[in-house]
Amino acid sequence: METEGKVIKCKAAVAWEPGKALSIEEVEVAPPKAHEVRIKIVASGVCHSDWAYLYDVAKMKPRSFPLILGHEGAGIVESVGPGVSKVSKGDKVIPLFLPQCGQCERCLSPKTNLCTKNWEKTQQGVLADGTSRITCKNQQIYQFIGISTFSEYTVVPEDNVTKINPDAPLDKVCLLGCGVSTGYGAAVNTGKVESGSTCAVFGLGAVGLAAVMGCKAAGATRIFGIDINPDKFEIAKTFGAAEFVNPKDHSKPIQEVLRELTNGGVDFSFECVGNVGVMRAAVEACSPAGGICVIVGWIEVEELSLAPLDILLGRTLKGTYFGGWKSVEAVPRLVQDYMSGKLLLDEFVTHKLALDQVNQAFDHMITGKSIRTVIEM
Amino acid sequence: METEGKVIKCKAAVAWEPGKALSIEEVEVAPPKAHEVRIKIVASGVCHSDWAYLYDVAKMKPRSFPLILGHEGAGIVESVGPGVSKVSKGDKVIPLFLPQCGQCERCLSPKTNLCTKNWEKTQQGVLADGTSRITCKNQQIYQFIGISTFSEYTVVPEDNVTKINPDAPLDKVCLLGCGVSTGYGAAVNTGKVESGSTCAVFGLGAVGLAAVMGCKAAGATRIFGIDINPDKFEIAKTFGAAEFVNPKDHSKPIQEVLRELTNGGVDFSFECVGNVGVMRAAVEACSPAGGICVIVGWIEVEELSLAPLDILLGRTLKGTYFGGWKSVEAVPRLVQDYMSGKLLLDEFVTHKLALDQVNQAFDHMITGKSIRTVIEM
Repeated sequence: METEGKVIKCKAAVAWEPGKALSIEEVEVAPPKAHEVRIKIVASGVCHSDWAYLYDVAKMKPRSFPLILGHEGAGIVESVGPGVSKVSKGDKVIPLFLPQCGQCERCLSPKTNLCTKNWEKTQQGVLADGTSRITCKNQQIYQFIGISTFSEYTVVPEDNVTKINPDAPLDKVCLLGCGVSTGYGAAVNTGKVESGSTCAVFGLGAVGLAAVMGCKAAGATRIFGIDINPDKFEIAKTFGAAEFVNPKDHSKPIQEVLRELTNGGVDFSFECVGNVGVMRAAVEACSPAGGICVIVGWIEVEELSLAPLDILLGRTLKGTYFGGWKSVEAVPRLVQDYMSGKLLLDEFVTHKLALDQVNQAFDHMITGKSIRTVIEM
Repeated sequence: METEGKVIKCKAAVAWEPGKALSIEEVEVAPPKAHEVRIKIVASGVCHSDWAYLYDVAKMKPRSFPLILGHEGAGIVESVGPGVSKVSKGDKVIPLFLPQCGQCERCLSPKTNLCTKNWEKTQQGVLADGTSRITCKNQQIYQFIGISTFSEYTVVPEDNVTKINPDAPLDKVCLLGCGVSTGYGAAVNTGKVESGSTCAVFGLGAVGLAAVMGCKAAGATRIFGIDINPDKFEIAKTFGAAEFVNPKDHSKPIQEVLRELTNGGVDFSFECVGNVGVMRAAVEACSPAGGICVIVGWIEVEELSLAPLDILLGRTLKGTYFGGWKSVEAVPRLVQDYMSGKLLLDEFVTHKLALDQVNQAFDHMITGKSIRTVIEM
């Protein structure tokens, strides 16, 4: 059945209100408007941020509900709206919560990947015209950061999508839509990890493991993995960490333990949890003489407290958003890196579930059972 | 009279206890021990830190008293202890609170200037053997950060002194012992200000004005000076600032004002006050897309609070200690830069006083009357 130009009825996992499990519903996905692309989602990773906006509302600024979560997906272009030239029907694509319009001041700057196109709108859960393309029971359903991959179909602005190798396995490369790109880029782009350096990665979820992989790729000699769940240590070895510290095994603060293990502090540290206490520990675990701490974990409400002298004497604090990658051009290259064996992805996928099992994916994540669950549509 | 090998009796300004004015006393300065240098101090700048350790004790960790303050001096080597090879009697020198031994791991690293030699001892107000060389009324007088330039004579470790051009005017180049080197280096070394960039300098005391001068030297196109004392704006023009903002003139936070004036934020900001609220403003005044904030002001007790997203999205927070200069080798070069006209120093010196007027110098500083008072011995 030809769907182009028509409303598509399909399944999606709707978040009706904060704190409540996702509900599988039939939704209506409108055709793409000008400069928009409708995508048949094939697979979607389940990221901690999806969970956090639903359940950890004390730490996040409130979003508009009802909402369809999911922002780490891959799929196939079903149709394009007027004026779309960058992708065509049938292309394999990854939707991007961070666009790259290629024309704004920031896209033209080598210093940042924070394209401003559609930013405020997609942060509010709508597309450029201020509305979403998804409805359910005659109600507009907001699109989480403009994406909504927990749906069989979605519509995104054309600058929020990138075409990838047609041979790429979508149930793996979907992870490049958020977590793996973020962690890997934190190490290679933002931290600019140096060959021979010592690194510490706090939090060994998918983002942290990707950061470990980035440290390894950059030539770090010592990579510490830090997690309160020692089950993560085995898999972290796969990505390149060889030393592990569980804060629960020590009575003294973890930053002291790490400083002792590393003759004064690590060269690079990565906070991949989204916890202000861990951020402080990651800063203080760095060498005061030139150590660089990169914040990767996302937290919107709480504040980070630091002793000014810990910065003043020579540490650097940085942050990374989508790993510093200019999204449209970088993600297809990362797909190629995966296909050529330079980048691991398969190893992140510990579980595969169907869309109607998405709440189970949250359980796996929160109980520490999974690294990544991929939802297959 | 030959003084070598003998105790020298001379005048010094002694801080008997926190919160009390300095007292001019006759002190006894012992001969230098091995690897130490006794210096006849000719001139000393009066720096805000000198004042802070005496009067702003709520913000500083307690030091040992009685104490001789002063750490921004210049003088002539009176004698050297056994084993000293780097300077000789009669050399013009600048004592350095931050040494450069040239041999420790940090001295060998291009990333840091934080030489570890004697660090803990001099921070405690004593030299390498755990004692000071100065006594008064049969009491040991601690040497502030190992230096004590508010004295006609002092003794420092040989790695804490550097030989300068014999033609250099000591009543000017003394400022390179702390404030001017710190602010200038914050811009050119730590921030690495770029040509064509927009900068904001918070606090237009000597350190801030030196940061302005560094921004100008690095080719910044727009330099904002920020101070609650508008009397500073005129002199800041001399150093290269052309735009000024007085937070007292605005009802909205100064960071918002600056973001509005600069299309979203400055490229580089410098906190030259030592106030955690100003540090936060300096971070938030930066462009979220790659802005760099350098903390220059010193504060030991209060904590800096930040919204993690202000870092995560792309700002960088750095700190500078002695402007990132490797002290022994850099200070003589800075002296040369002054003598060749590349660096301004005369313009910082608004007042000259004798040692017994040192308390007046504090008054001038705190009331905002002076940029730098130089004490001439």
